Amino acid sequence: MADEHNAPRGHIRPAPENFLSDEDVKRVESGRRDFLRKSFLSAGAAMAAVASGRALAAPEGDDAILTLPPWSTSLGQGVATRPYGLPSQYEKGLIRRESPGLTRVTASSVAFTPLQGLFGIITPSGLHFERHHQGWQDIDPSKHRLMVNGLVKTPKVYTMDDIMRLPSVSRIHFIECGANTGMEWGNVAVPTVQYSHGMLSCSEFTGVPLRLLLEDCGVDLKQGKFILAEGADGSSMTRTIPMEMVLNDEIIVAYGQNGEMLRPENGYPLRLVVPGVQGVSWVKWLRRIEVGDMPWASKDEAVHYIDLMPDGKHRQYTSVQEAKSVITSPSGGQVLLDKGYYNVTGLAWSGRGKIKQVDVSFDGGINWKSARLEGPVQNKALTRFNIGWVWDGKPAILQSRAMDETGFVQPGYGQLRAVRGTKSIYHNNAIQSWKVSESGEVSNVQVL
Amino acid sequence: MADEHNAPRGHIRPAPENFLSDEDVKRVESGRRDFLRKSFLSAGAAMAAVASGRALAAPEGDDAILTLPPWSTSLGQGVATRPYGLPSQYEKGLIRRESPGLTRVTASSVAFTPLQGLFGIITPSGLHFERHHQGWQDIDPSKHRLMVNGLVKTPKVYTMDDIMRLPSVSRIHFIECGANTGMEWGNVAVPTVQYSHGMLSCSEFTGVPLRLLLEDCGVDLKQGKFILAEGADGSSMTRTIPMEMVLNDEIIVAYGQNGEMLRPENGYPLRLVVPGVQGVSWVKWLRRIEVGDMPWASKDEAVHYIDLMPDGKHRQYTSVQEAKSVITSPSGGQVLLDKGYYNVTGLAWSGRGKIKQVDVSFDGGINWKSARLEGPVQNKALTRFNIGWVWDGKPAILQSRAMDETGFVQPGYGQLRAVRGTKSIYHNNAIQSWKVSESGEVSNVQVL
Repeated sequence: MADEHNAPRGHIRPAPENFLSDEDVKRVESGRRDFLRKSFLSAGAAMAAVASGRALAAPEGDDAILTLPPWSTSLGQGVATRPYGLPSQYEKGLIRRESPGLTRVTASSVAFTPLQGLFGIITPSGLHFERHHQGWQDIDPSKHRLMVNGLVKTPKVYTMDDIMRLPSVSRIHFIECGANTGMEWGNVAVPTVQYSHGMLSCSEFTGVPLRLLLEDCGVDLKQGKFILAEGADGSSMTRTIPMEMVLNDEIIVAYGQNGEMLRPENGYPLRLVVPGVQGVSWVKWLRRIEVGDMPWASKDEAVHYIDLMPDGKHRQYTSVQEAKSVITSPSGGQVLLDKGYYNVTGLAWSGRGKIKQVDVSFDGGINWKSARLEGPVQNKALTRFNIGWVWDGKPAILQSRAMDETGFVQPGYGQLRAVRGTKSIYHNNAIQSWKVSESGEVSNVQVL
Repeated sequence: MADEHNAPRGHIRPAPENFLSDEDVKRVESGRRDFLRKSFLSAGAAMAAVASGRALAAPEGDDAILTLPPWSTSLGQGVATRPYGLPSQYEKGLIRRESPGLTRVTASSVAFTPLQGLFGIITPSGLHFERHHQGWQDIDPSKHRLMVNGLVKTPKVYTMDDIMRLPSVSRIHFIECGANTGMEWGNVAVPTVQYSHGMLSCSEFTGVPLRLLLEDCGVDLKQGKFILAEGADGSSMTRTIPMEMVLNDEIIVAYGQNGEMLRPENGYPLRLVVPGVQGVSWVKWLRRIEVGDMPWASKDEAVHYIDLMPDGKHRQYTSVQEAKSVITSPSGGQVLLDKGYYNVTGLAWSGRGKIKQVDVSFDGGINWKSARLEGPVQNKALTRFNIGWVWDGKPAILQSRAMDETGFVQPGYGQLRAVRGTKSIYHNNAIQSWKVSESGEVSNVQVL
């Protein structure tokens, strides 16, 4: 029997992350540093090992369809066998995966969304990326409180019940960690799109506009120019947000995600949704909002999530995620199994508004064609693009370039480095290049 | 400690379905007929039992917040503890539930979506309603085939790999079973919105336009006026669909749902998406499309899913779901815990296009106010509406009335029965009425 996670899709063999066996995972866990070196620093070798060690099983003859398969001749399982449903047994390989070796403890680490196997714009909540600073908590909502204090007439403490009684809004927004694609600053060609771009997800969020809560407490808008958002976990996560972002009515104190309550890993029962802004400001397990007259310079904005510029100065409070895009399939680690037609698909997003256009190149940026955008194209949300491509079997370099409604065009690495240098960790929105070799192997390359 | 599923939300105590204990479920399962009689035929008595037997636990004093809770002082759980995430332990009560007593075997039955606890328009795939005719199957995608035959130049058999290679589209659409709200034809006041309207879900679907596959096989459009869709499960599910629905480019041969592959209960690895049309035509585990010159009159369109009209004739092939809406909270079985402001929320949809307007009445249809529609409002998709209401503690009747972009207005029961009579099972799109009593109890009433 073929490895259940090894089946090609669209004549593309999945990257190794899609079909690591339990033994593989154990091996990775017991030798994480080794794996880091192998998979992040010499992706090519790892690919080759997979290619030689796992030949594709011969496809079964289509004669099989002349006999009725068991699923057509047997009684299936009943309704509500799983009152809360789960994916097929054949999809076990599509999971979020920890950054191998990047951090020492899982409680302060990252688990990446498997973008290479996803469709459309909604990220299934079970595959939403995770970034914790002190692990995740499953807080009893009946005991959770949100305090609003600082420059307000009447400081208040809200129960979840109080908050859920108020007028609510529902909106689709992307969330991207400021450190997404961060390793590329150091010219590390992270092998797959799950690890290069997987700190990115998109959900329909539901909650109360933050402005409404502040007005309920009699916010002082003359002096109050900033807010501080604070989480209830053990990491003392606090972030400053300018008041003008509150006043444009986009920030939501959210309890709902993709139709149901937030997941514990994503801040259940309450998180801040700050559309267009890097994920760290979307404070999870939100317990306090303070109104103040200047930024707080908390540890996670003074020491982390800052950009070291070529002149040696740090750039701070650069929290808006600029226009960016990535081709999710074909992508790194995958193998094209033959010549011919492929549906090239990917995601584009901008912290400044809607995506207006996505251009795709198959020759490393010489020629560009506009991709088809799938609806709905929403403000500060992922946008799915698709474009057809006939592969002639020769080497090719696939790139996508997003443009948002402000006219901002996603830069190449050359343009980005000219301004930002090479010492950054955060806010890399450069054009991603995937090289297709004659053997069909897709790998991550940097094109200046 | 308070029952974990009993916590009020927005000053509304959930309906009993939200906090049935395991013991309750066992009792229901061992005496299903009894439960049917109790809960479907005398909803009032069941509500009363709950109200007297489950007093709300006294809320903990807010002094508790002066001491840091354990989630602020302990190390949380690591990333990818659950590589495929799940809801909070405090959300165990929000699950799909089988129709109690309506069918004799679970393999040919219904499990309803808990609309009363959902937000926005995306239904979490784990809570998507289920309707099976021979149980659900988890088909190995590497062995699944789709055949296109009949009035085509070249009949073809596609693998999943072939289909996933083709150009794909992603779109958000609702699916509603033609029998949704069917018991109301017999004046049965089904107690909660989960059971009255819960054969309704909405997802982002991804797949190949059916038209493209038919063209690939050289469809004969002069003679070919209908298609037959056939499922691979044991129920021989077959449905006729007019060719004009294929030619408007809306029908999708879908493999993706809410970002990931379809769930087994919803047709993994392939189902037909027929926007605006009742769920039975969205054939699951799709294995064959035949092109023909006349309807097939298969058992599921000749004997089932037909409407018995007042003149004694059956109406057949009435498969488009007309404009409809329902207030999901407050809704049947819930209890308003005090006077004052409530966020009244619900869903509207139409098989004819976009929702244009939703009006809400708090006095049984005398006065109407337009609700706020949340974006994005999509073609043949659920649309979330919200409207504020201040309850003065007096009896009230809450109703919603949808209007779609064709100008069609959702009818009241009087209008609907004048045309359709009382003998139908399917295609009930009448205005739903929820009565709020002085004690705050919400119950299902029919207003002509």
